[in-house]
Amino acid sequence: MSAEIAARTGELLALLRERRPRVHCITNSVVQELTANVLLAAGAIPSMTTSAEEIGHFAASADALLVNLGTMDGERREAIDIALEVVRDDGIPWVLDPVFIDRSEPRAELARSLAMKEPRIVRANAGEFAALIGTDAGEEALDKFALDRITVAACTGAVDFVTSGAKRARIANGHAHMAQVTGIGCAETALIAAFVSVEDDEFMAAVAGLLVMGIAGELAAQSANGPGSFSPMLIDSIAALDAAQIERHARFA
Amino acid sequence: MSAEIAARTGELLALLRERRPRVHCITNSVVQELTANVLLAAGAIPSMTTSAEEIGHFAASADALLVNLGTMDGERREAIDIALEVVRDDGIPWVLDPVFIDRSEPRAELARSLAMKEPRIVRANAGEFAALIGTDAGEEALDKFALDRITVAACTGAVDFVTSGAKRARIANGHAHMAQVTGIGCAETALIAAFVSVEDDEFMAAVAGLLVMGIAGELAAQSANGPGSFSPMLIDSIAALDAAQIERHARFA
Amino acid sequence: MSAEIAARTGELLALLRERRPRVHCITNSVVQELTANVLLAAGAIPSMTTSAEEIGHFAASADALLVNLGTMDGERREAIDIALEVVRDDGIPWVLDPVFIDRSEPRAELARSLAMKEPRIVRANAGEFAALIGTDAGEEALDKFALDRITVAACTGAVDFVTSGAKRARIANGHAHMAQVTGIGCAETALIAAFVSVEDDEFMAAVAGLLVMGIAGELAAQSANGPGSFSPMLIDSIAALDAAQIERHARFA
Repeated sequence: MSAEIAARTGELLALLRERRPRVHCITNSVVQELTANVLLAAGAIPSMTTSAEEIGHFAASADALLVNLGTMDGERREAIDIALEVVRDDGIPWVLDPVFIDRSEPRAELARSLAMKEPRIVRANAGEFAALIGTDAGEEALDKFALDRITVAACTGAVDFVTSGAKRARIANGHAHMAQVTGIGCAETALIAAFVSVEDDEFMAAVAGLLVMGIAGELAAQSANGPGSFSPMLIDSIAALDAAQIERHARFA
Repeated sequence: MSAEIAARTGELLALLRERRPRVHCITNSVVQELTANVLLAAGAIPSMTTSAEEIGHFAASADALLVNLGTMDGERREAIDIALEVVRDDGIPWVLDPVFIDRSEPRAELARSLAMKEPRIVRANAGEFAALIGTDAGEEALDKFALDRITVAACTGAVDFVTSGAKRARIANGHAHMAQVTGIGCAETALIAAFVSVEDDEFMAAVAGLLVMGIAGELAAQSANGPGSFSPMLIDSIAALDAAQIERHARFA
Repeated sequence: MSAEIAARTGELLALLRERRPRVHCITNSVVQELTANVLLAAGAIPSMTTSAEEIGHFAASADALLVNLGTMDGERREAIDIALEVVRDDGIPWVLDPVFIDRSEPRAELARSLAMKEPRIVRANAGEFAALIGTDAGEEALDKFALDRITVAACTGAVDFVTSGAKRARIANGHAHMAQVTGIGCAETALIAAFVSVEDDEFMAAVAGLLVMGIAGELAAQSANGPGSFSPMLIDSIAALDAAQIERHARFA
């Protein structure tokens, strides 16, 4: 199955570059630029407004929506409500990133209520998933969460674990620099949102996003001198990535 | 005329570095850092606040004002109103960038009303100009818009077209990476605002900004490995650009 | 004393990497990404929310707080009030950066009132300190300010001057590129906040932050081609900096 997944990821990346989907990102102010540049490098077209007046227009003309809870505020809460109504009515897929909910209970509550609203995929780290589901984020707990919420859980760390409850993957790609640069996880979720706009199988879309980011990260780290130079090289690697590289470098645990 | 324009651009860049004008930017949260760094590299001093309480103070002590409509919200709308009143009273030039108005009708309406308030220059791409003027953004339509609004239209794309209605230029400089990095167009408009603070001829200021960005982009692309490494190299190229390079590389279509 | 200060700075940097303190940053939207990446490179864990609902939770679980007055708005004012109450009650150190208060009188007033609330350190340039204390920011005026407010004043420029009123240091490290990149000063204050979370002696914490940034800047400038490539290399240099480099390169004036 691993070889098929890698091959399909290469196809999906080609599809992304051909279709150029619009990904609207309600995301935190710290990572907007990196997120936009990761999406552009992959072939998608980002937009980022969070104002109540405009969010409906942007969501309605988007092919996927990212809801990232970083730097959450009143404006973003309102924008999320409006955008989710639009995407539900129009059948546009959306993806949830519950950033740092382990640091703020009001944000964790918001994440729990959003998880009830049918995100296609939830991407977070183990600490954030623990705050979301209320227990340690072990593989079985994540399986149960995915089944209960009819979603895909993508739990990232040294090894990424993706589960739909029925299907599971463990991705071993990546590099330590990725944890030393702000917003890599946030941009990764945006990339997953781009993939879910061209792939109906949410499990496959999540895996594709994680593989592309992880492999591009490994390739970038080969010539980086630290986390600062790593960041532009990651963008270069995403822009240059092709199916052959994905098939050669994909590693499953 | 082309040689004169290139020579004048070199002079204006030298003037910018000597005078160090303050450019206040009401701009979107995605591109603030790149915009600030482009302005600093060119010799200008950026400021970025958008709060109602402070915008009047910053606008009053600025040499030019940028109004960019990205990530528009209530705070930014109020800031624009206050800032435009200040710059009108004080004769400070301002420049309009109607980002993504083709994606949001409320934003397009705002742009149309702002275009009535005597921006010295409007910089946008063809899709945004079409939303602004209500027809395809052909050269004649842009000429008419410039004449009607007593402004300069700078329509950027593979070839940039600049018109005051009376004077016209077509600039062929630039590189494909510039469309793959978020905020290059926004930063370009900020650069135009810097030039209009040292050049009374708005047509010349717009052309100078586009030439500097386009040529710096070409030089940066020579050593970039992709859109990620392109971005810091673009800043380096702007900081290092001199009159001889501008005269050697300027290309008009 | 200089050798001792350099040696202690090396120890504190090692401590920072070991303890990984959480630094909550109420800072302006332009510099959030750079600030976060500088903190991560040094070993600290940044968070950035400014919403009233969440700031208390983030401040309470932080090891230090940065209050930077850039892009000040109503939300940030409210967040500052809440956060300062939390950190005062919990004995969490906080640091003030009165960005650009020389451009806006309401912001200068805010800075003056915040300076009364026992920041451990105030970091600013000479123009900002002049607006804060109401006279030229000469060394004696800064000594008096530090004594009156029971704080440490860190005035950065070609040579940085740090004073507690009793202890003084003049640091000559740094590079011209640091003034050409937006947010370097802001990130420097964040770094000082990280150091004050692992060093009770505020004077020493301020000096350590300035030495680390100044030396890393010099090392980065050796291979940079301009302010654009300087910025990622600065992050690389901070991440790679060790005690031996600090002791070799520290220069006091």
